[in-house]
Amino acid sequence: MRKIKVFAPATVANVACGYDIMGFAVDKPGDEVLAELTNETGVVISKITGDGRKLPLEPEKNTAGVAVQSFLNRIRADKGVRLEINKMMPLGSGLGSSAASAVAAVYAVNELFGKPLSKDELLPFTVEAESVACGSGHADNVAPALYGGFVIIKDYHPLKVISIPAPELYCAVLHPDVIIRTEDARSILRMDVQLKDVVTQCSNVAGLVSGLFLKDYELIRDSLHDVIVVPHRSKLIPGFFKAVEAAREAGALGASISGSGPSIFALCKTSQIAKDSGEAMKGIYQSMDIDCQLYISPINPDGPKIIE
Amino acid sequence: MRKIKVFAPATVANVACGYDIMGFAVDKPGDEVLAELTNETGVVISKITGDGRKLPLEPEKNTAGVAVQSFLNRIRADKGVRLEINKMMPLGSGLGSSAASAVAAVYAVNELFGKPLSKDELLPFTVEAESVACGSGHADNVAPALYGGFVIIKDYHPLKVISIPAPELYCAVLHPDVIIRTEDARSILRMDVQLKDVVTQCSNVAGLVSGLFLKDYELIRDSLHDVIVVPHRSKLIPGFFKAVEAAREAGALGASISGSGPSIFALCKTSQIAKDSGEAMKGIYQSMDIDCQLYISPINPDGPKIIE
Repeated sequence: MRKIKVFAPATVANVACGYDIMGFAVDKPGDEVLAELTNETGVVISKITGDGRKLPLEPEKNTAGVAVQSFLNRIRADKGVRLEINKMMPLGSGLGSSAASAVAAVYAVNELFGKPLSKDELLPFTVEAESVACGSGHADNVAPALYGGFVIIKDYHPLKVISIPAPELYCAVLHPDVIIRTEDARSILRMDVQLKDVVTQCSNVAGLVSGLFLKDYELIRDSLHDVIVVPHRSKLIPGFFKAVEAAREAGALGASISGSGPSIFALCKTSQIAKDSGEAMKGIYQSMDIDCQLYISPINPDGPKIIE
Repeated sequence: MRKIKVFAPATVANVACGYDIMGFAVDKPGDEVLAELTNETGVVISKITGDGRKLPLEPEKNTAGVAVQSFLNRIRADKGVRLEINKMMPLGSGLGSSAASAVAAVYAVNELFGKPLSKDELLPFTVEAESVACGSGHADNVAPALYGGFVIIKDYHPLKVISIPAPELYCAVLHPDVIIRTEDARSILRMDVQLKDVVTQCSNVAGLVSGLFLKDYELIRDSLHDVIVVPHRSKLIPGFFKAVEAAREAGALGASISGSGPSIFALCKTSQIAKDSGEAMKGIYQSMDIDCQLYISPINPDGPKIIE
């Protein structure tokens, strides 16, 4: 095999109460990467589509390029790789766009070389790549994009992630055309938190994790709240609380900011409720004359998929 | 049946990272309550042993009395109850002494009246009773004492607790003869917490809950850390860090403050490791000339037990 095309999913990091420690993957949207073996060593990114020409072709500045170069160094490859990246989701949307490209690329290249490394071994390359895109090597998008499903980031030194089994769940992801820079989303956070809010947050984390294990939808519903980060970040997203309320009224278990925003996710028990919740959120933004994209899909259970 | 004797277990609240939201029950120590039906309505506490005469016999000032009176009111009892309480653990030790008495008493009286109420219905009476003993109606001792095993306190309004399945675990509980008032243990806490510590705490909560569900002892080991409360409360317990280190060196998965202290618990994979960890902690206090009591037992899986 000299050529392969791989899809990797968008991801919802934070998941309300799980700030910086939790994420899950969805089936839509996601990025595609075509990878081809070349006889020269190193990485070439020959083409990027769907990014409005915003992403760099230089491999050392591109998350997919960084992840693949680390992979090639690790296996001491005597061949190189050419990449074509097709961005199929908005950039800077809080949906783990950079993570999806990095995961798709490194997964594809690992396949081309005959699968020398496991997902656990690929993960650190994608975390490293995130530091190029985000300034810090967070794993809460790359880990769910790579493993699928719900993932807890337990530790960074050494890197340790936990895959959590979950019941059948569907997600509506709404991306309003509002620009939030990740740096702004971080700087708006208060660095001090009240102890009573820590207790509430921890009880929600314990409730959400337990709810996923126990397949207890009501417990998941009761736990999808964030008292620490969302009260601040929501200020950067017009219409946020109305959208959350609309999604809940349409039957969603809960809704919150995806990653650092501006996208909003609604987690739902059925595909129909996800559609209804998504449309309800979309209605809020249409009434505010803000364009938006809506994606409805089940939770992605496995991570990247080989397309051709 | 006119008379019954019930044992209710001591409990370890907080469980390192689970400050104010988690607790578990142990088989030793615990309190015993003898309850007898009387023809006059209301509660009489005729005798308390093992308390060094420190606990009040007035039912409205005693946790067991308060819990039972609430029960009698709820079922509109036309009979009353006489209680004898045998305290079999040190008071103010951080082992949920007041909770054990309240749970044993209300469980016993429910049996005497033919089990009109479920455990879920008994729980609020014991939470109310805790406000007499502690000034606030915390559930992190009464809930594990009543249900056994590991329990998460998800919410107070309305009260919602979650029982977490756990693998086989043993506990060494060491009570050093050091006096800590619950009020002091609370007032030493910082009311503001750094956001980065919240993230660490939440990752440990998620790790501990997942570790219990997955029966993953290494994940439990990695998660039994508290970066928010223990750094402050440990100052009130001489020898604390040495004892924790000794327990870990003896093979414990982790060790931390039980409740608001001064007791220290060590959670262990086997009974033998619990014995070794307990003896190692005891050695630390003996070398400091501080008396201590050591209890070794498995996790109590069911809560109260009828003795006779």
